[in-house]
Amino acid sequence: MDLETAVKLPISLALYSFGEGHFEKHHITSISQITSFLAQDHKFWLNISDLENIELLEDIKNIFDIHSLTIEDILNTLERPKVEVFDHFILIVAKMLYTRKGIEDLESEQFSIVFGKNYVISFQEKSFDVFDGIRVRLENPSGKLRKNGTDYFAYALLDAIVSEYYTLLEKVTDKIEVLEEEIVSEEKRVKLSEIYNQRKSIQQLKKVIWPTRELLSTLKKSESFLIKRRTLPFINDIYEQTVEIIENLEMQRESITTLVEIYMTNISLKQNEVMKTLTIIATIFIPLTFLAGVYGMNFKFMPELEWKFGYFIVWGIFIGTAIIMAFYFKRRKWF
Amino acid sequence: MDLETAVKLPISLALYSFGEGHFEKHHITSISQITSFLAQDHKFWLNISDLENIELLEDIKNIFDIHSLTIEDILNTLERPKVEVFDHFILIVAKMLYTRKGIEDLESEQFSIVFGKNYVISFQEKSFDVFDGIRVRLENPSGKLRKNGTDYFAYALLDAIVSEYYTLLEKVTDKIEVLEEEIVSEEKRVKLSEIYNQRKSIQQLKKVIWPTRELLSTLKKSESFLIKRRTLPFINDIYEQTVEIIENLEMQRESITTLVEIYMTNISLKQNEVMKTLTIIATIFIPLTFLAGVYGMNFKFMPELEWKFGYFIVWGIFIGTAIIMAFYFKRRKWF
Amino acid sequence: MDLETAVKLPISLALYSFGEGHFEKHHITSISQITSFLAQDHKFWLNISDLENIELLEDIKNIFDIHSLTIEDILNTLERPKVEVFDHFILIVAKMLYTRKGIEDLESEQFSIVFGKNYVISFQEKSFDVFDGIRVRLENPSGKLRKNGTDYFAYALLDAIVSEYYTLLEKVTDKIEVLEEEIVSEEKRVKLSEIYNQRKSIQQLKKVIWPTRELLSTLKKSESFLIKRRTLPFINDIYEQTVEIIENLEMQRESITTLVEIYMTNISLKQNEVMKTLTIIATIFIPLTFLAGVYGMNFKFMPELEWKFGYFIVWGIFIGTAIIMAFYFKRRKWF
Amino acid sequence: MDLETAVKLPISLALYSFGEGHFEKHHITSISQITSFLAQDHKFWLNISDLENIELLEDIKNIFDIHSLTIEDILNTLERPKVEVFDHFILIVAKMLYTRKGIEDLESEQFSIVFGKNYVISFQEKSFDVFDGIRVRLENPSGKLRKNGTDYFAYALLDAIVSEYYTLLEKVTDKIEVLEEEIVSEEKRVKLSEIYNQRKSIQQLKKVIWPTRELLSTLKKSESFLIKRRTLPFINDIYEQTVEIIENLEMQRESITTLVEIYMTNISLKQNEVMKTLTIIATIFIPLTFLAGVYGMNFKFMPELEWKFGYFIVWGIFIGTAIIMAFYFKRRKWF
Amino acid sequence: MDLETAVKLPISLALYSFGEGHFEKHHITSISQITSFLAQDHKFWLNISDLENIELLEDIKNIFDIHSLTIEDILNTLERPKVEVFDHFILIVAKMLYTRKGIEDLESEQFSIVFGKNYVISFQEKSFDVFDGIRVRLENPSGKLRKNGTDYFAYALLDAIVSEYYTLLEKVTDKIEVLEEEIVSEEKRVKLSEIYNQRKSIQQLKKVIWPTRELLSTLKKSESFLIKRRTLPFINDIYEQTVEIIENLEMQRESITTLVEIYMTNISLKQNEVMKTLTIIATIFIPLTFLAGVYGMNFKFMPELEWKFGYFIVWGIFIGTAIIMAFYFKRRKWF
Repeated sequence: MDLETAVKLPISLALYSFGEGHFEKHHITSISQITSFLAQDHKFWLNISDLENIELLEDIKNIFDIHSLTIEDILNTLERPKVEVFDHFILIVAKMLYTRKGIEDLESEQFSIVFGKNYVISFQEKSFDVFDGIRVRLENPSGKLRKNGTDYFAYALLDAIVSEYYTLLEKVTDKIEVLEEEIVSEEKRVKLSEIYNQRKSIQQLKKVIWPTRELLSTLKKSESFLIKRRTLPFINDIYEQTVEIIENLEMQRESITTLVEIYMTNISLKQNEVMKTLTIIATIFIPLTFLAGVYGMNFKFMPELEWKFGYFIVWGIFIGTAIIMAFYFKRRKWF
Repeated sequence: MDLETAVKLPISLALYSFGEGHFEKHHITSISQITSFLAQDHKFWLNISDLENIELLEDIKNIFDIHSLTIEDILNTLERPKVEVFDHFILIVAKMLYTRKGIEDLESEQFSIVFGKNYVISFQEKSFDVFDGIRVRLENPSGKLRKNGTDYFAYALLDAIVSEYYTLLEKVTDKIEVLEEEIVSEEKRVKLSEIYNQRKSIQQLKKVIWPTRELLSTLKKSESFLIKRRTLPFINDIYEQTVEIIENLEMQRESITTLVEIYMTNISLKQNEVMKTLTIIATIFIPLTFLAGVYGMNFKFMPELEWKFGYFIVWGIFIGTAIIMAFYFKRRKWF
Repeated sequence: MDLETAVKLPISLALYSFGEGHFEKHHITSISQITSFLAQDHKFWLNISDLENIELLEDIKNIFDIHSLTIEDILNTLERPKVEVFDHFILIVAKMLYTRKGIEDLESEQFSIVFGKNYVISFQEKSFDVFDGIRVRLENPSGKLRKNGTDYFAYALLDAIVSEYYTLLEKVTDKIEVLEEEIVSEEKRVKLSEIYNQRKSIQQLKKVIWPTRELLSTLKKSESFLIKRRTLPFINDIYEQTVEIIENLEMQRESITTLVEIYMTNISLKQNEVMKTLTIIATIFIPLTFLAGVYGMNFKFMPELEWKFGYFIVWGIFIGTAIIMAFYFKRRKWF
Repeated sequence: MDLETAVKLPISLALYSFGEGHFEKHHITSISQITSFLAQDHKFWLNISDLENIELLEDIKNIFDIHSLTIEDILNTLERPKVEVFDHFILIVAKMLYTRKGIEDLESEQFSIVFGKNYVISFQEKSFDVFDGIRVRLENPSGKLRKNGTDYFAYALLDAIVSEYYTLLEKVTDKIEVLEEEIVSEEKRVKLSEIYNQRKSIQQLKKVIWPTRELLSTLKKSESFLIKRRTLPFINDIYEQTVEIIENLEMQRESITTLVEIYMTNISLKQNEVMKTLTIIATIFIPLTFLAGVYGMNFKFMPELEWKFGYFIVWGIFIGTAIIMAFYFKRRKWF
Repeated sequence: MDLETAVKLPISLALYSFGEGHFEKHHITSISQITSFLAQDHKFWLNISDLENIELLEDIKNIFDIHSLTIEDILNTLERPKVEVFDHFILIVAKMLYTRKGIEDLESEQFSIVFGKNYVISFQEKSFDVFDGIRVRLENPSGKLRKNGTDYFAYALLDAIVSEYYTLLEKVTDKIEVLEEEIVSEEKRVKLSEIYNQRKSIQQLKKVIWPTRELLSTLKKSESFLIKRRTLPFINDIYEQTVEIIENLEMQRESITTLVEIYMTNISLKQNEVMKTLTIIATIFIPLTFLAGVYGMNFKFMPELEWKFGYFIVWGIFIGTAIIMAFYFKRRKWF
């Protein structure tokens, strides 16, 4: 619980100071430099992508007066997405989900935001993130990001994260449609585990998006002075996006259940066909073989064997039986 | 977020000015003409079926004092149905569902309504809609549409949309009944994917109708001055229709589950029959063939072969065994 | 929406005027005759079994001051059961469910009640109803029906309807028990569709009884002056009956799921048996047939054929192999 | 509804008058004798196990001032468990569940309690009950039953009933464990219907225990002066027991679902084994039989037949093929 | 209900007296020694691992003024986890879950905590527990355990218990992943019962963790003076951990369902393969055997037998048919 002094690590701190008609990017090396920014009129965004420098976090805890459990929430990367409203700041723990290869390689990364009156501090687990768009927009002098407060900035970060969920949802949906195509057309042999991999991706998305929806719902109703009235419609907007995503995930989950059923039925149908082939062949030839066997017997006295056309009559019986059988199977729609 | 100036497109604006004892249809070409209508005593309906003319929407935003997120809601055709009550107007985002060919070709189209004290503006995604009936009723001088306010007009539009859902529900129901008939009678070979197509249609309907129900429930309780007390029973009426449709969809969904089970059982039963045929034939003839084989052996000393009636006795055994077997299968109800 | 003047049809109006120590039955021909009854001290019950006489309904609407949507609710026979409490009257829309042949021929009929201070008007879709018991009880001078108010009378009508649901529930339960008996005993071949027919009946009952339960719950809490305090326990009584029926329906639904599972398992078990029969016969005789075939070969030099007891030794091998096989199958519990 | 005078039946009334330092058992013959007890200081318990003596119930109704619907609730043995709090008494309708043979013969019996300031009247459907322990404890002079009020006595009765549910739950649990043991070990052939019988017992228990839980929850919150504050922890105690039982029933229900799945899988696995046996035998011997058949042909010119070691070469082929086949099946892990 | 005097058993009482700058460990032999500690300034933790010494519990009941039902709750080891807030103390009934061998040998042990202003008494069912970490931390002079109140101490105990749940969850998750690996790769033959054992572990965990979550939720909102404001975030912290565990359990449960489905499908696929092997062999050789049988017949007049190349022609037919059949099966993708 106590954040003891740890080994000093190369820290990665990116600080963007901004405001109407103002934008500066700093690469600070020590946390003490922040104090001067706090006193300024401008807002600033401090992005920390190094959760192992305990000393740094201890400093932040002291400067911004943060509860030690909050720091623990930020450090514990198994945390569920959640929001906590304190008197002088708001903590948002969110999850970035993205994929750098295919939908099967879903990566999850915890992203925590602490924002107060004029600062936004964000903590990311790995160095990769989904905020390049925001960095670009910050440089736009007339953009909303500069004009609005820290609450709008936090919204923008969350918006970027949720947009990524959308992208993933689309990838899963596409993949499921391809699988459906392949299964229904029966052209390519699909492995059941391929279907289940998609189910897993959906589960992972769902596990993240449900608490995110809750988080946004809490944020909407938080009534903190830090969230301005005019930012509420924007928060509501991403809230509705999460609802939309959840509904779509639910539909995709049902699609998968359906796919599995079709898959199973196809197996049954194929087995039926195999069985029919066997049955038709066996049912036709087994009796004929028996008859051939009869006339292969070596009894002394077998009158038919002496008949002149015996052999041909037997062939007639063979062919006749086969034809009758074929008709019978035809009528029962076996082929 | 900012609605920048876009290329000017041929716009499609239809404006109907109406009131008690008054009805005029205008084809306006520029949005500035609307201002004069706003000042009039009559109500008017402006229907816009061109969501790509950004400049037009920008004008509307300014004239009617609409939040930019509202315009985004109208433009984003992936929006869920919803209602938003503002001080001076109400936004309703609904979905038209219709089919111009068969139930398999379900088309979805977003339809947004913004209505204030004396205007109704509607935005449709495509040029097709389901409001021909309303256009006819507007021309009827003693009709309710003319007498009542804009809230009643908005109700009429929603009513037309929900009626279409009913029509679709009936089509799905009919199709499912046909499939049930075919599967139970086993006359026609139904493909499993045909059943699942219906399940998909139901899913699509459900996805639209659930939020529509919510929308209407919110509208009922909105307490906006824009919705008059005497319009409430009408809104409640379509609200109850959506409940009715949802219940029916649920029943149809269960019917499909049942159909799939019957389908699967039929496959199993058919396989059982195939297996029985094989087993009966094989079980009767395999032992007989063996016996025929025995007397086809070439041992020097095989006493039976010398018997005068050996051959006929063997035939007796053949026929006897076959009859006993047949009785055995009969008793076990195999055929 | 406007109830235009329609063709005059032969109307069927039955009016019962009653009160303590008073009972009269009238066959009125015109609705205007009702006005005189309204002024009387006695209560009256007007039962209308003709929903196509629009003029009549228009008259009723005017005399009793009923909203036009209420009349529509009465006319629209697809309405869900519901209650609506107005200032001077209460509307109850209920569904009679009954069967005149077997449980497979479930008939549904909408029954609406409008009751005020001293009148009960009921509208039925068809001429058949379930109220013969009420007509008899009305003639009993000391019965509760005469002594109590119109609320008690409405209760009595609903009670008769809900009792009928009970009867249907019992019929379904009996039928399911018969099916269970047949399936478990495997005596009679049951078709899967028979089981599903019962599921359908349950669905139909459920679809009606759920909103009826809601209706009664609303009625209990309505706090209308039209419902006297001492009638509440009676309403609560049928409310509890609906809860009881719903629970039983749920249990029956589960029973059906179980039945289907047993049915499926029986198919599998039967197939297993068929397969075993085939396998036993084939596994015993195929190797023997091979051996017989071997000694049926025509090689010049086959020493065994010359042996004196060759034939009998081979028979020994045949019988020995068969016995060993039989033991093997016995040990594996195949028969 | 009116409780008309019925035939006089031999009544079974047991009356226990008790209090601190006082206990008497009376066999009263007429209900009028009760009036004297009512005036006494002591409390009394009147147990009636004869619900067909209508006159008796009519008397009780009058003496204790009970609503006629309450009497109906007591008489209608299909009632769900419930509690009704009146001004001067509390009605509890509960269900005794017990088994006198095995868990398959679950018996249900309605048990109603009416208790006021100094009396507890109980009505049981049959003469058997689960209250012998209470009768014994009543005779204990220092027991809590004597010291506490009628609310504690009613609690004690309910406690005895709920304890019996526990016993039943344990019996079902034991039986399911035995079935699981038998199915997993595959030693004994279990019939699917045996599993489903347990599911039925669970359903029956659940149907009774859910409303009992509700009943106890209502009782806890009733705030009637008849229920003393110090009795509440005891009521809460059995309330928690019902919650515990419900959870366990839920777990047992899941266990059964699992059992059915294992059962089904076992059938499939067994079928697989049967099929494999057939396939191995047939696949080995059918080609060999063919070869034997070839050398059984009677062509004039068949060079192999003349070879000296032809016969032995063929045997070599027979054995070689069989060994290769066996290896093939071994490698595919078929046996 | 009355805790009668029982046989005296060797008691196991461990008492830790602690406070800021103070820590002592006592092995007391009689409960009367506790009274002196109660009067002290320091807090103390009394851990009792002997629930069969009734006399001891009776003493505790009297000294700490505890309700007899509370003692029953502690003694009844089938109790669900719960919290009860009394005026002068709080009772927490929790369950330790741990495994000393493998995840299949899950052990459950009831652990009850009673804490007041300056004492924490804990009751454990067996002598094993999960609190070694706490005992070590108590000895740390500057640790939070010593500085904070009894509420923080109770939190620490619960925290240790919930951490153990996490460990178990991880073990189950690992085991399921191993099973999934084995099933998908089809390398090792997995028994269905192994999968179901994991489902059982999940059920057991779920049964304990759900009420624990409730318990913590109640504790958070208890508003007892015994729980200080600064302890609330810590309680909330383990509350969120339980939510996290529940979600993960839910995901694992779904994984198991998926595993069972894959398992079933694998059985079906294997059966399909077996059937195909049989069908291919039988379909090729049965007709050939028939043909061989034909030329094994002993008819006097069979012209083909006299042909010089008859035998070779027949071999040609044999090989030709086999090749055609093989092509046919190849085209149908049977191998």
